[in-house]
Amino acid sequence: MKKIERLKEELERRGLEAYLSVRNTRYLAGTTAGKAVIVPVDGEPVFVCSRLELERARRESQIRDIRAFSSWRAPLQRGERVFFMEPWQLIAKVLEEIGTRAIGYDGGDRNFIRKIRGLHEASYLVAPEVIQNLRMIKSPEELNLLRRSAKIASLGMNRAAELIEPGRTELEIAAEIEYEMRRAGSEGTPFPTIVASGSNSWLPHSTATSRKLRNGELIVIDLGATFNGYASDMTRTFALSPTRKQLRILQVVKGAQRAALERIKDGVTAKQVDAAARKFIGRAGFGQFFNHGTGHGVGLEIHEAPSLYPLSRDTLRSGMVLTVEPGIYIPGAGGARWEDTIAVKAGGYETLTQADKIL
Amino acid sequence: MKKIERLKEELERRGLEAYLSVRNTRYLAGTTAGKAVIVPVDGEPVFVCSRLELERARRESQIRDIRAFSSWRAPLQRGERVFFMEPWQLIAKVLEEIGTRAIGYDGGDRNFIRKIRGLHEASYLVAPEVIQNLRMIKSPEELNLLRRSAKIASLGMNRAAELIEPGRTELEIAAEIEYEMRRAGSEGTPFPTIVASGSNSWLPHSTATSRKLRNGELIVIDLGATFNGYASDMTRTFALSPTRKQLRILQVVKGAQRAALERIKDGVTAKQVDAAARKFIGRAGFGQFFNHGTGHGVGLEIHEAPSLYPLSRDTLRSGMVLTVEPGIYIPGAGGARWEDTIAVKAGGYETLTQADKIL
Repeated sequence: MKKIERLKEELERRGLEAYLSVRNTRYLAGTTAGKAVIVPVDGEPVFVCSRLELERARRESQIRDIRAFSSWRAPLQRGERVFFMEPWQLIAKVLEEIGTRAIGYDGGDRNFIRKIRGLHEASYLVAPEVIQNLRMIKSPEELNLLRRSAKIASLGMNRAAELIEPGRTELEIAAEIEYEMRRAGSEGTPFPTIVASGSNSWLPHSTATSRKLRNGELIVIDLGATFNGYASDMTRTFALSPTRKQLRILQVVKGAQRAALERIKDGVTAKQVDAAARKFIGRAGFGQFFNHGTGHGVGLEIHEAPSLYPLSRDTLRSGMVLTVEPGIYIPGAGGARWEDTIAVKAGGYETLTQADKIL
Repeated sequence: MKKIERLKEELERRGLEAYLSVRNTRYLAGTTAGKAVIVPVDGEPVFVCSRLELERARRESQIRDIRAFSSWRAPLQRGERVFFMEPWQLIAKVLEEIGTRAIGYDGGDRNFIRKIRGLHEASYLVAPEVIQNLRMIKSPEELNLLRRSAKIASLGMNRAAELIEPGRTELEIAAEIEYEMRRAGSEGTPFPTIVASGSNSWLPHSTATSRKLRNGELIVIDLGATFNGYASDMTRTFALSPTRKQLRILQVVKGAQRAALERIKDGVTAKQVDAAARKFIGRAGFGQFFNHGTGHGVGLEIHEAPSLYPLSRDTLRSGMVLTVEPGIYIPGAGGARWEDTIAVKAGGYETLTQADKIL
């Protein structure tokens, strides 16, 4: 419940009496069963869910005050307590009960909030950054889950390394990677696994097609696992009888990642890290082929704060988990990206993704 | 481009001069590479994407006027045209160019629309239903993709049927199912595969855990594939040396699905179909254990319109694709659900999911 305590401190500091979360219910309650979590600055949090999730919420939620709604009247089981109303009506009822007048919330459909406001008069402040700031700094428990998730991703990448050979399809390799990760406990991939060979390699967001691997090409593999909701993200680029230019691309992209990683420690700006990778690639003459940011935060979502790109205002802090993933994409020649998920530490960083079969 | 033409007709009918889509870009352009699609009532649609998606958009988008943005200045490749601005600036620029004053849009972050409005003055009407209504009725091409997706789901279910035996874990079965579907061309699962045995079977939204299957229990398997973006959804409930009560639950849930399916044809209300399943289960004495709606539309999203539940206002029309999935969840005894994805036809329906190894 430490997250709830941290949230309450933050509310106090901002003069808010309660927080209504519809976008961070998993973070706050440890389950996907919720529709909303309401956290009063004084008092216990309330978990709101659909009737069909009630039993799962009881098993999974760290919040004990659970209220279920059903928008239609229906026969109930003995001892089952359900509010026959729409979710916004139940949320407004809880807010009314708490008696709060200054509410922060984290987003959600505009109409939904309007309906709540219509039933419980108060000032409603869109303040997603309150929870975003908490989520950026991972707790030791979260770091452990992220390590496990990254470990599973590494197993997937090791499996990929065994399969890179001419004639295999991208799809076949993706299937094997995902199977390996699933058996190791991954709950599914946080994004579609990328196996991008040849002319697909210079699309940063390719997927996996029926295209067969051939000699003379680069193959970008970008994969992730999910463990207890926590994502991981990792890319390696393989080469089959590569040309000299392809080898050069590979070498530069790895060098750029190293240059960026060397800058990482508590207190450095995200922009500085991005600049290190960008400068390295620019000096090698490939600046026009690096068309995205250097990395992003990872947690319950595959893309969350902070963001590493030239205009970023984020500063790296101990406990942040992020990717470092420069890329070079040269149409006609080949694309390459090299990516790890790392945790920022006081004087440096810890690499969470480790694929020992790939240099 | 038939979707664009249908959208334009709809805009004309509503007195709108253009539509700004940020939530339905895949539907309108056939690719996930887009940030927005702008459709003027007179003139050609414009596709807006991030610089890093430009090459993919060129390959995949059915819309030919593609404009890319980069929020930071960076060296460009020869012939590469990029607007160095934020996405909302580029969208406002396109709207300004079109000169439209009455714009419908389909949602998106409130701040995002506010920023666009600040740069291009016009009336902006949130009208997600415009595209939602188009999306509800599937084109023959969409129906073919949905059939393919359902076919892959059926392969997954047949594989599941081979694996139901005491001692296997839920996770192991989920891994095998997903592997089978992936190899058959699925792009990943549209929702986490559910393998819910024993005490998990009475959670409608369980996942797949390390729990081992045992005799004397029901096992609910709910799975889906994705093909060219189109989802499928299917549930079967298996029994291992079941009790008489478990067999009865199974029998009733299958009967309820039949009762609902028998009502389906063009012109019937979603509410009537839901009522048929609900009445069947109620009469069998299990009314209090059916705690969710009877089904939902399926398309590019796993849950889309229409919705089959007691308060639904939808009417079923030829070309709609939806699930029919009554369930009974009895704590302590067992849970069961029986689900197919079907397409509504003039005088009935077509079942898209077909698992021949399961009666």
